[in-house]
Amino acid sequence: MMEFLEVTYRISDSASYVQERIESILREQTIETPAAVAARYPFVRENMTGSIREIAPDASGGMLAVLALPLITASSDPAQFLNVLFGNSSLHADVELVDFRIPPSLEPLFPGPKYGIDGLRRLTGVASRPLTCSALKPAGARIDELVDLCLGLVAGGIDMIKDDHYLADQPFAPFEDRVRACLASVEEMSATSGNRTIYVPNLSGTPDVIRRQADFAQRAGAKAVMIAPMLVGMPLLHELSTQWLDIPVIAHPSFSGSTRVPSTLLLGKLFRLFGADAVIFANFGGRFSYSKSVCREIAENLRKDWMWLGRAFPIPAGGMDADCAPELVRFFGLDTILLVGGSLLEAGDGLADATRVFTASVQSAAEALLNEA
Amino acid sequence: MMEFLEVTYRISDSASYVQERIESILREQTIETPAAVAARYPFVRENMTGSIREIAPDASGGMLAVLALPLITASSDPAQFLNVLFGNSSLHADVELVDFRIPPSLEPLFPGPKYGIDGLRRLTGVASRPLTCSALKPAGARIDELVDLCLGLVAGGIDMIKDDHYLADQPFAPFEDRVRACLASVEEMSATSGNRTIYVPNLSGTPDVIRRQADFAQRAGAKAVMIAPMLVGMPLLHELSTQWLDIPVIAHPSFSGSTRVPSTLLLGKLFRLFGADAVIFANFGGRFSYSKSVCREIAENLRKDWMWLGRAFPIPAGGMDADCAPELVRFFGLDTILLVGGSLLEAGDGLADATRVFTASVQSAAEALLNEA
Repeated sequence: MMEFLEVTYRISDSASYVQERIESILREQTIETPAAVAARYPFVRENMTGSIREIAPDASGGMLAVLALPLITASSDPAQFLNVLFGNSSLHADVELVDFRIPPSLEPLFPGPKYGIDGLRRLTGVASRPLTCSALKPAGARIDELVDLCLGLVAGGIDMIKDDHYLADQPFAPFEDRVRACLASVEEMSATSGNRTIYVPNLSGTPDVIRRQADFAQRAGAKAVMIAPMLVGMPLLHELSTQWLDIPVIAHPSFSGSTRVPSTLLLGKLFRLFGADAVIFANFGGRFSYSKSVCREIAENLRKDWMWLGRAFPIPAGGMDADCAPELVRFFGLDTILLVGGSLLEAGDGLADATRVFTASVQSAAEALLNEA
Repeated sequence: MMEFLEVTYRISDSASYVQERIESILREQTIETPAAVAARYPFVRENMTGSIREIAPDASGGMLAVLALPLITASSDPAQFLNVLFGNSSLHADVELVDFRIPPSLEPLFPGPKYGIDGLRRLTGVASRPLTCSALKPAGARIDELVDLCLGLVAGGIDMIKDDHYLADQPFAPFEDRVRACLASVEEMSATSGNRTIYVPNLSGTPDVIRRQADFAQRAGAKAVMIAPMLVGMPLLHELSTQWLDIPVIAHPSFSGSTRVPSTLLLGKLFRLFGADAVIFANFGGRFSYSKSVCREIAENLRKDWMWLGRAFPIPAGGMDADCAPELVRFFGLDTILLVGGSLLEAGDGLADATRVFTASVQSAAEALLNEA
């Protein structure tokens, strides 16, 4: 019995070829190969292709498409879930993720908030009214200055005091000292004021650092912590919530609109800066609408001399035809990884031969380029 | 000697009030409090406020602003670096991150690609021509079917074979068995063909799972691995590259355009699904342009009955005035956390009193609401 993830996308394309467009999105979010390739595998053909459930005009323009995507591809882990939800299709400027529905069998994977409203009410002792919350800032204030703020806020009857999301583990207010001092002052002041104010430290860093911070905060007596999932990674939120924390986690929206970072910067510079040795991106002339100039700039950003950073390989990809290898070698130059998938796989039993043709054409295009130089 | 991060933003606003707009972005990305609050702290006043370096019209419309942001806030860890780069400002629809420059003192934090072009050339033995690469897919193929693809690709002289980014740890091709089988087949076939083809497994999961997968892949003899940083979290890419991997890491762009996920879905549903007990979002009438209806929908998505998921607290925030508490209680109802920062902190020595007024007004607004019901 196959199960499905039901995902709704909005396509802003004109209606004239929207059916074709939706079929290509369905393919992108499932088998990601030409239909002829998928047809070769009985299991894939029967279980992995998904289907279009509904296409309807959207009141705000464009079309809404409801797709059924096979759960078996999506349910292995939280990162892969996001991947099937809106991985490659996020790269199409005319496609928006609108909504999704998942079957009850995903409850073990996504248990959801452990505390939520009821738990936070229990912790703060606030039965029905809205909770009150304030923030410790500005960044740059010393710990004793933050403690002063805590004392005033608790005295004023606040329910929650959170770190500003700019408080990480900086020298002006180091994490462990800050957490210890703020917890102590809030607890002491609450004892006299009769409140149950909770102090919520902000966790920031790579996953390993955040796990240590979470552990420290819990042992020190924190009743909740805060992270920004789009900064630290959505799967880390999941891991903290399901495995490492016995206290509530507050999510901060920072970076969640980062949406407007151009690919030339995100893929070309940030991924390199963060240590990627090679970066795949959607090439022009393939399944995506990236322009030649964007692709050139991504590649150049990855390879150019830039500070102390080693040069990273560009990997143009996405529906590229092996026949285009000579053109691509000429366009991207020698320091490139050419990624060709479906176009080779279409060869079926002739895969080795097709691959040989591809690799030989790259070899000779490279020689031609070298001879010209 | 203060150091700065130099960040360029594009603002699409009309020029009439662009100076004011840019000053507000500078404040958002630095002290995030009213200037009067920051002025109270000598260290903050002298070191944390940053400055506007340049404002110039952009050829493609709008204005470009180059801001100098204090490095001391940004350099504690990779997540915090992103935060200062484009954290809250990413939530403004009229602001784009365009570029950034960092000082050489950040080299220890961001060592960059460990292998890069030279290392991958050494690994594959390809001196100067472009490397060739293909992908194992479709998802749903059995391991023996993936091995067949490997054999054909190696026989054809390919340099790299990567997992499709949809191959996670699914039952149809479990991670460890797949990696072992593909590595063995590629190695065996390469020995006869004379190539040095490398197989690149795709890692997917929460940070802990990915670390185990990376460890397994390395011990099994993989020469490189792949991850999608926007799915698994940019800081995890950094941690893998700097701490856990002795082999190159290939970055996949999946989810990097996810930019077009509306906040009602990302904050309202996905963060809850992933386990957030409470979610902060930019409230209407504050520093951000979220509409009342978007805010209402985020709150409702967090709180409504939805599958098996516990209800999560909405935390409207962002430049809210404590005086608005009664209105906000009426608008969001009782199951809400009201987050007020700068507006309270402005009170200075009168913080406790201001807080008392705020908490009392929430209390009485809640009572009024309960009496009406």
